[in-house]
Amino acid sequence: MSIQAREPIPTVEVDGEALAIEALYGADRPILIRAIGHVVREAGGAADQAHGNLSEIRLLPGMERFMAGLEEETALVILWHLDRALPVRTRFPRGWDGKEVGPFASRTPHRLTPIGVTEVELLEVRGTTLVVRGLDAFDGTPVLDIKVSFESLRRAARGS
Amino acid sequence: MSIQAREPIPTVEVDGEALAIEALYGADRPILIRAIGHVVREAGGAADQAHGNLSEIRLLPGMERFMAGLEEETALVILWHLDRALPVRTRFPRGWDGKEVGPFASRTPHRLTPIGVTEVELLEVRGTTLVVRGLDAFDGTPVLDIKVSFESLRRAARGS
Repeated sequence: MSIQAREPIPTVEVDGEALAIEALYGADRPILIRAIGHVVREAGGAADQAHGNLSEIRLLPGMERFMAGLEEETALVILWHLDRALPVRTRFPRGWDGKEVGPFASRTPHRLTPIGVTEVELLEVRGTTLVVRGLDAFDGTPVLDIKVSFESLRRAARGS
Repeated sequence: MSIQAREPIPTVEVDGEALAIEALYGADRPILIRAIGHVVREAGGAADQAHGNLSEIRLLPGMERFMAGLEEETALVILWHLDRALPVRTRFPRGWDGKEVGPFASRTPHRLTPIGVTEVELLEVRGTTLVVRGLDAFDGTPVLDIKVSFESLRRAARGS
């Protein structure tokens, strides 16, 4: 009798229990997303203490071609990779009001889809480095995309 | 002399020119993201005409476990897959003001990272189906995540 090597079934841990990826998502192929840069954050550094919650986003050199007009914006939406593996939970007390909710009614990182979305204030652009305020991502976090903010869209819709 | 089959170098088309993925992004491995459901949209249907820009988000059955408290929210952020292949551009006139900008200063789908982010109004939850207003995604679009809106966060921060 031979022992055959088998590929382990890919799983995700939800509330401490391993669920098969295919049982949760079906057989659709995943989408491939690539980082365009990363976060640099000197927690407790002098600049951070003086100005509150500052980070740099250092884009890859090849991203410069997509930056036209960026330096004139003040409010951006940053998409980033929740790359610190956290257990997925179905219920927990929500941060801002303590209400017991699931991931879809919150912004918890304990969620299936490992993408964070944060609105930030753009303070400065130096080459392919952006200085921003309000990005709640750790030092080294991969950045996935930059868009103009919802607020800018709403202001434009109001014509102000 | 033998002809060897070679894997084609993976490229992305930017302004009509093929750029090697590795030249743009470096050698980092991509992140795998999976759809949690899809958009159903009956453009020009009776409900759409009466109520304006309505869509359904039909979540996969296994997603019900993450929906606690969702039906009590009114404003959500939807992440979705820009799955209609569009050429990536570095400059174009921005939709709302005609200003010439790049993808990072806009919300254009002509961007490298194929993820759309839209704030919507939640009107109704029926099982794992959400009825929403304001989702600018085509019928059949894969949905990647649901979060509570920035606006809800801001209201909470203001204590109102």
